[in-house]
Amino acid sequence: MIGILGGGQLARMLALAGHPLGERFRALDPSPDAGVRDLGQLVVAPYDDPEALDALAAGCDVVTYEFERVPAASARRIAKATPVHPHPGVLDVAQDRLTEKELFGRLGLATPAFAPASSRAELDAAVSSVGIPAVVKTRREGYDGKGQFVVNTPADLDRCWTALGGKDLIAEELVDFDRELSVLAARSADGDTVVYPVVENVHRAGILHLSRAPAPDLAPELQVAAEAHARSVLDELDYVGVVAIELFEAGGRLMGNEMAPRVHNSGHWTIEGAVTSQFANHLRAITGRPLGSAQARGHAAMVNLVGSLPDLGEVLRINGAQLHLYDKPSRPGRKLGHVTLVADVPDELEQRLSLLTRLIG
Amino acid sequence: MIGILGGGQLARMLALAGHPLGERFRALDPSPDAGVRDLGQLVVAPYDDPEALDALAAGCDVVTYEFERVPAASARRIAKATPVHPHPGVLDVAQDRLTEKELFGRLGLATPAFAPASSRAELDAAVSSVGIPAVVKTRREGYDGKGQFVVNTPADLDRCWTALGGKDLIAEELVDFDRELSVLAARSADGDTVVYPVVENVHRAGILHLSRAPAPDLAPELQVAAEAHARSVLDELDYVGVVAIELFEAGGRLMGNEMAPRVHNSGHWTIEGAVTSQFANHLRAITGRPLGSAQARGHAAMVNLVGSLPDLGEVLRINGAQLHLYDKPSRPGRKLGHVTLVADVPDELEQRLSLLTRLIG
Repeated sequence: MIGILGGGQLARMLALAGHPLGERFRALDPSPDAGVRDLGQLVVAPYDDPEALDALAAGCDVVTYEFERVPAASARRIAKATPVHPHPGVLDVAQDRLTEKELFGRLGLATPAFAPASSRAELDAAVSSVGIPAVVKTRREGYDGKGQFVVNTPADLDRCWTALGGKDLIAEELVDFDRELSVLAARSADGDTVVYPVVENVHRAGILHLSRAPAPDLAPELQVAAEAHARSVLDELDYVGVVAIELFEAGGRLMGNEMAPRVHNSGHWTIEGAVTSQFANHLRAITGRPLGSAQARGHAAMVNLVGSLPDLGEVLRINGAQLHLYDKPSRPGRKLGHVTLVADVPDELEQRLSLLTRLIG
Repeated sequence: MIGILGGGQLARMLALAGHPLGERFRALDPSPDAGVRDLGQLVVAPYDDPEALDALAAGCDVVTYEFERVPAASARRIAKATPVHPHPGVLDVAQDRLTEKELFGRLGLATPAFAPASSRAELDAAVSSVGIPAVVKTRREGYDGKGQFVVNTPADLDRCWTALGGKDLIAEELVDFDRELSVLAARSADGDTVVYPVVENVHRAGILHLSRAPAPDLAPELQVAAEAHARSVLDELDYVGVVAIELFEAGGRLMGNEMAPRVHNSGHWTIEGAVTSQFANHLRAITGRPLGSAQARGHAAMVNLVGSLPDLGEVLRINGAQLHLYDKPSRPGRKLGHVTLVADVPDELEQRLSLLTRLIG
């Protein structure tokens, strides 16, 4: 039995990948409608409910999490009696944009300039140190573009403070990047690591819209560099499982933006597009099995279905299209599913992608 | 909700393919341990229990079956109120080796010579009409090599009658085939059909051991012929769903052996090895969605895990190996799971296959 903190689409796809490996699943989620509910047991409770945490872990061989905002104390409580992968210390790093960027810097992965701020005076100083335009973010709890404020002129600082003040903040240089990339990798307990091809990501309104894998026309040395960065982060953290590192490509080099200590939306293409999916490799890693090849199979694109669903029959009519629904009710801004397209050559992929984009709008 | 008569590994893999399409599943199976139990609802009852059949179908959009020995009367009962795909009339054909072969003959698919026999005198006449050696089979209920008797000399006829007599039999010419093949195809209600590449199958003790897809070195005209045969069978039966037709290749031509009106063991490679798996296409067909491409992605081999499991860690260490366990207790002769290998080129596939074969014995 594998326990998962969180029962949403990532838990759901872990379970779909895990049943063929002979695994069973139990998830903890505050919602009785959590998307994993038909694929395993569901404990419905807040993430900090001690009894629920114990019920989740009871009889589990290993516990993992599908999102990094799970209370680290909850992961630590479970880890006293049951292995938790990635280990709870990873959450301390990944929950704080400051420690995350400090880690990147220590390991030689360049980042946008950054400075922490916990008061209005510190905010002014931080923004002036990184330069304007800057993006100010809460150090913790932000995701999908929430908890962020772009400062374009000094006059924006008042509104920024009104929006975000009172929390620990980080001001970051607003990098004029060429594109957003990510690299996913899996590491097993014995240190074996596989790295997926770097992916190109396009966001809309702060939410991932599209990933292309492998990233088109990526300079080979950037793939090599991304792999090295992924390996050093994993080794430094003595990490077990899948990690995603979001990157900027700017002027022919990579900068680290943030990391997610879990399977990641920009890795959903791996279900069809890689020899071993990120979900299967996360499970292989946390259960002590050998990792599978992370090689790409042809070219893939993943498009999120956000807020409402298009005509699914028309989507499935596109050659090479596979549908992944998350069993969630529609709501603006909510990820309801994704579509993966595969093709043998990039041109074919782009043709199919333009058909899909027309349907999705 | 999709209902399935039978809750074994085929139902399990249908459910794994169907959740991403937004489907839920309910299966009827006499065993409370049926492999689909963690992936949907399970009605535990015999296949001819009227109340259980009604409970299976209640609220289902469509009902299908995972094996052809389900009582046709059960399928007909459900079909009065709920669509059943493939329609119950298909079971009448597929449950009887005689009508199956007559269908093949009517549609221009050659078969081994055959003759029915219901008495000892008819058996003698049938065997002498098809020639010795002959294989005598029960017309109904045989599978995985059960209910078969090879007659090598006239003296074998007594033992054959002792083993099989009292049932309706069919005597078939024992074809000296070059290899066993199969072709799988899916047809939607509007007549659209996709055909998978022909597969080469190797049996051990009457149970499928290995499938290679696409069948190595298949003459292109045999792929064309197999596709045409599959289409004519599907059209003739006004079939909705996936069908498998087992073939012999003998002297450069194809002969029809039997058909399975369902997803099939020789199509398990499609999960990783085809653009759209047989399971996804069966579900697309029976739910009125457009079919997906049946094209192969590189080269694949599928090996069944029968009776007992090998060292699964070693299996997963093989590059390109994916494991599919069926959640069934070990028992001699029982299919417990399968392993799919994928590779870009045939030589690489054969290397990986020899590693796997060494582990499995």
